[in-house]
Amino acid sequence: MLPRRNLAKIKLQRVNSAASERADDVVAVEEPLEIRVTFESSGQRVERSISVTMRTPGDDFELAAGFLFNEGLIASEREIHEISYCTGKDEQLYNRVNVRLRSGSACDAERLQRNFFVSSSCGLCGKASIEQVRTAAKVPLNDNRPIVPQAVLMQLPEKLRSKQAVFEKTGGLHGAGLFNAAGELLLLKEDVGRHNAVDKLIGERLLNGKVPLHDSILLVSGRTSFELVQKARMAGIGIVAAVGAPSSLAVELARETGMTLIGFLRADKFNLYTGEHRVKHM
Amino acid sequence: MLPRRNLAKIKLQRVNSAASERADDVVAVEEPLEIRVTFESSGQRVERSISVTMRTPGDDFELAAGFLFNEGLIASEREIHEISYCTGKDEQLYNRVNVRLRSGSACDAERLQRNFFVSSSCGLCGKASIEQVRTAAKVPLNDNRPIVPQAVLMQLPEKLRSKQAVFEKTGGLHGAGLFNAAGELLLLKEDVGRHNAVDKLIGERLLNGKVPLHDSILLVSGRTSFELVQKARMAGIGIVAAVGAPSSLAVELARETGMTLIGFLRADKFNLYTGEHRVKHM
Repeated sequence: MLPRRNLAKIKLQRVNSAASERADDVVAVEEPLEIRVTFESSGQRVERSISVTMRTPGDDFELAAGFLFNEGLIASEREIHEISYCTGKDEQLYNRVNVRLRSGSACDAERLQRNFFVSSSCGLCGKASIEQVRTAAKVPLNDNRPIVPQAVLMQLPEKLRSKQAVFEKTGGLHGAGLFNAAGELLLLKEDVGRHNAVDKLIGERLLNGKVPLHDSILLVSGRTSFELVQKARMAGIGIVAAVGAPSSLAVELARETGMTLIGFLRADKFNLYTGEHRVKHM
Repeated sequence: MLPRRNLAKIKLQRVNSAASERADDVVAVEEPLEIRVTFESSGQRVERSISVTMRTPGDDFELAAGFLFNEGLIASEREIHEISYCTGKDEQLYNRVNVRLRSGSACDAERLQRNFFVSSSCGLCGKASIEQVRTAAKVPLNDNRPIVPQAVLMQLPEKLRSKQAVFEKTGGLHGAGLFNAAGELLLLKEDVGRHNAVDKLIGERLLNGKVPLHDSILLVSGRTSFELVQKARMAGIGIVAAVGAPSSLAVELARETGMTLIGFLRADKFNLYTGEHRVKHM
């Protein structure tokens, strides 16, 4: 068990119109994480650095697994042999993760290169970006799952907030929650990067053999971008809901791939952008 | 003059507890932008793809220039010969920008490679990341500029908000504003990506020969990450203020490089994390 490394104590000055006083506070930790992959290619053992992301420490193996899956580099958790922190005299122990793939994993060098380019660059226009997600997605969506009453949806932000409040003292962490169709919170992950929070969430389910997530709703505390909808699509999640606004490409990707996208979700209302067949009006 | 491409009209359903109605709305546009660089290396003309970012169209040349400068790939606007959209039968016109550098630009192939790795990977621990920014920064900071009364600082969020409200109808855009020491808004940029908003802002000043920005305050509408403080440091901005929370590495980078970092900025109070010598208590 690692020590709790997601909060850091700092000293600051609280300034108001009348006075200024020194105080102690906590902020969300941000540190780089390098994700490396080791695999066999033509009988040779190959090690590649895949990504460096600024993340909040914790759930690093889940983050690595989720990232590889959500970016289309691996098609299943069964391709993963082992995940470990790299060690070495000159290396940081906990900022470099190596994912060792099974021999026979479809993740060969070329595919790595190709897929990473595809998913990191997302093509040169919105249509191409959407087409690339379609191609990369290994898991089908289910049109009839989940079906969720609108009253259940409206309760989700408060459930996420009340749970987040336990952990979140800094105001600096994005939250991503996974709910079932009854509105029960299954899993919550937090990170300074919202894409990391979603990778951690999906990575945890992946490592537990629970992907595709056909019966789940993803709720994010902020806004929805193309990237977040992409990650949900890769995991087979039918409903993406957000407290904030979606971007144009988030809406288009959801529409083109048959997902349900909800924004500005509140206790008494929401915007339904696409995929109304999964929302029961009652 | 390009058409206004930062807002997209969409159809949606507004759902509340009693009813559901179809409506029209606007969302912030998100599209990929590829930044390419052309330069001379050993007498050869070399073209390289440097980055693909998901951005809100508009100010693309400023975004490209700001990105190259803030990531340490160019040291001055004088290295830029021309910026243009790529054209071609099979290419998108407005999602690919080419920055042609002057012959003799210090931006040779090796430096590109090296710097891009440095700035995109940010090292393997917080200390290394900070050290890399120190090395990459070509512009010194000025310890005595700007000096700003705390009352002026407290007015900034409202000024940004009132100006943003004119453009921002979607709730989906991050805002970044540049103010002078008197609290006057000099420039405002918006984007679905907060790092893009800051690149656009600094890029615009760079192309106008106004960097280093020693007398400016950068205000962002969200939270501050390592990346945002890095960009401000590269441009010589002494004060970074945010409506939201900072991360641990944002605070450390500001402290280690002598910047002033402010968070949770409100009309009657704020948190001062480091660099109090630039804030006048009156």
